[in-house]
Amino acid sequence: MSEFIQVREVGLRDGLQLIKTQLKTEKKKQWLKKQIDAGFKEIEISSMVPKKTLPQFADAAEMINFSNKFSKCQTAVLIPNIKGADLAFAAKAKKLIFVVSASESHNLANVNRTVKESLHELKTIILRKNCSDDIKNIKIIGSISTSFGCSISGTVSENKVLRIAENMLEIGVDEISIADTVGYANPRNVSALFKKVTRLSQSVPVIGHFHDTRGFGLANVVAAIDEGVRKFDASLRGLGGCPYAPGATGNIATEDCINLIESMGYETGVNIKKLVKLCKLLETWLPDEQLRGKLLETPQTPLIS
Amino acid sequence: MSEFIQVREVGLRDGLQLIKTQLKTEKKKQWLKKQIDAGFKEIEISSMVPKKTLPQFADAAEMINFSNKFSKCQTAVLIPNIKGADLAFAAKAKKLIFVVSASESHNLANVNRTVKESLHELKTIILRKNCSDDIKNIKIIGSISTSFGCSISGTVSENKVLRIAENMLEIGVDEISIADTVGYANPRNVSALFKKVTRLSQSVPVIGHFHDTRGFGLANVVAAIDEGVRKFDASLRGLGGCPYAPGATGNIATEDCINLIESMGYETGVNIKKLVKLCKLLETWLPDEQLRGKLLETPQTPLIS
Repeated sequence: MSEFIQVREVGLRDGLQLIKTQLKTEKKKQWLKKQIDAGFKEIEISSMVPKKTLPQFADAAEMINFSNKFSKCQTAVLIPNIKGADLAFAAKAKKLIFVVSASESHNLANVNRTVKESLHELKTIILRKNCSDDIKNIKIIGSISTSFGCSISGTVSENKVLRIAENMLEIGVDEISIADTVGYANPRNVSALFKKVTRLSQSVPVIGHFHDTRGFGLANVVAAIDEGVRKFDASLRGLGGCPYAPGATGNIATEDCINLIESMGYETGVNIKKLVKLCKLLETWLPDEQLRGKLLETPQTPLIS
Repeated sequence: MSEFIQVREVGLRDGLQLIKTQLKTEKKKQWLKKQIDAGFKEIEISSMVPKKTLPQFADAAEMINFSNKFSKCQTAVLIPNIKGADLAFAAKAKKLIFVVSASESHNLANVNRTVKESLHELKTIILRKNCSDDIKNIKIIGSISTSFGCSISGTVSENKVLRIAENMLEIGVDEISIADTVGYANPRNVSALFKKVTRLSQSVPVIGHFHDTRGFGLANVVAAIDEGVRKFDASLRGLGGCPYAPGATGNIATEDCINLIESMGYETGVNIKKLVKLCKLLETWLPDEQLRGKLLETPQTPLIS
């Protein structure tokens, strides 16, 4: 038996943040259904943010309701603050991703709070959740954005990320996600940071979230795998990017990430032929968007080597 | 002082093989001159092949003559056989790359010879060179194509590559190049093969040549660096591909490879601003070609992190 590595799809959340096309709810539902059918066990489906800010996510509650039909797949929504958490609780979300930036200036731009304020809100959310039988089983991922650098304020110190991770673990998150929001990561600083974070987190799973801004995304995945990370975010056709991070570009492409991981001898549980079909469907839905990903660009690409 | 890693430009050779645009000799000369000015110390400039086969290289002798003015940069031409070698000797080339495929079927398609016949020709070429004072200082790279797999016959065994490498070293090549012609390499089989090849080659330098067919190119570079490889081929804007390998796509992009290597703390000796200027000039020369490379695609990309 090969070792398992999980790829979390973030296309329906991160992937839709920067694009101009307003994807209809029915299409999002089809996307989710087909991706679950292709074998995905965890998918981010929306963000609990004001409609005015990101109209793409106006149907968040409906998406949560729809996704709850699929018991085999964990579906998750992003929350930027307590208000978002309460909306997610009310909509019966089963998993939340709370985001804090390691860069103060990006955290202010992204969620209009200092890092300290964000962490305080995260603590309140987890306390509130744990006090109520109805919602205490909801899982919470603590995600640290701009963990390698920030296009507003430049370099981010490793210590800043580690202090936030420590704080999140004390507060009691179920998983930690280390995100390279704008492509500052390279295989060396990935090795260095993930080595320290996985040591801190012990049994709490660590997720790697890489954007392919400089083309180093898959190399960063390999570096993180070598540090024991077994869970990675990726977005179909390389969609994605943070609207509050100048120069942000897409996530690593899910299909390429799966192809890489499987080629290296791990299992992902994904049916790559079904995934390719879904990628092609996406092309028809998003004709005006910049789609990436080598697997679809080069049709004769060897799938597994 | 940081450790040095050399990136060899192959755009003027590998990069021009598949494109439709016939690049004028004057433009090739400008390209070469500007890239040497950006700090490159080794550049492949042409192929000694019949005009009918690849008209892009009809000016090979003129390019060799022009390149010999630049003493600081090693310029090299590809040779598929003895005839090519003799033409290169006559044109006063200083460095030759002799190609043999690890896949029999690709070697037949590419140079119309069995692997055994090719290796026999390589031996003859090196003997001929060593017997003549005029040409005995010419350097010869033995390049092994399709070292990880071949789109004609599939998987290539590691042993086949190692036997060819051993043979090339016995014959007396000055460097060994391990080429992933059609994108079958992944970081794990790269680690495995380069570990064995570098052990065999000892003081003879080993070059990594990766195509980015599946987007694993830069991850493969990192895997090879970790095995001690300090020399990599790359092509500006990711041009490239073998006309006799179905589904072949471009090499890793020089500018992204430099950005990766420098980001990881190594030195390449390349002035990246000058390189970006050359990339932009290339865009104006090749408006109908598919250009790749993240550095030029995402203008706000952080150069070094």
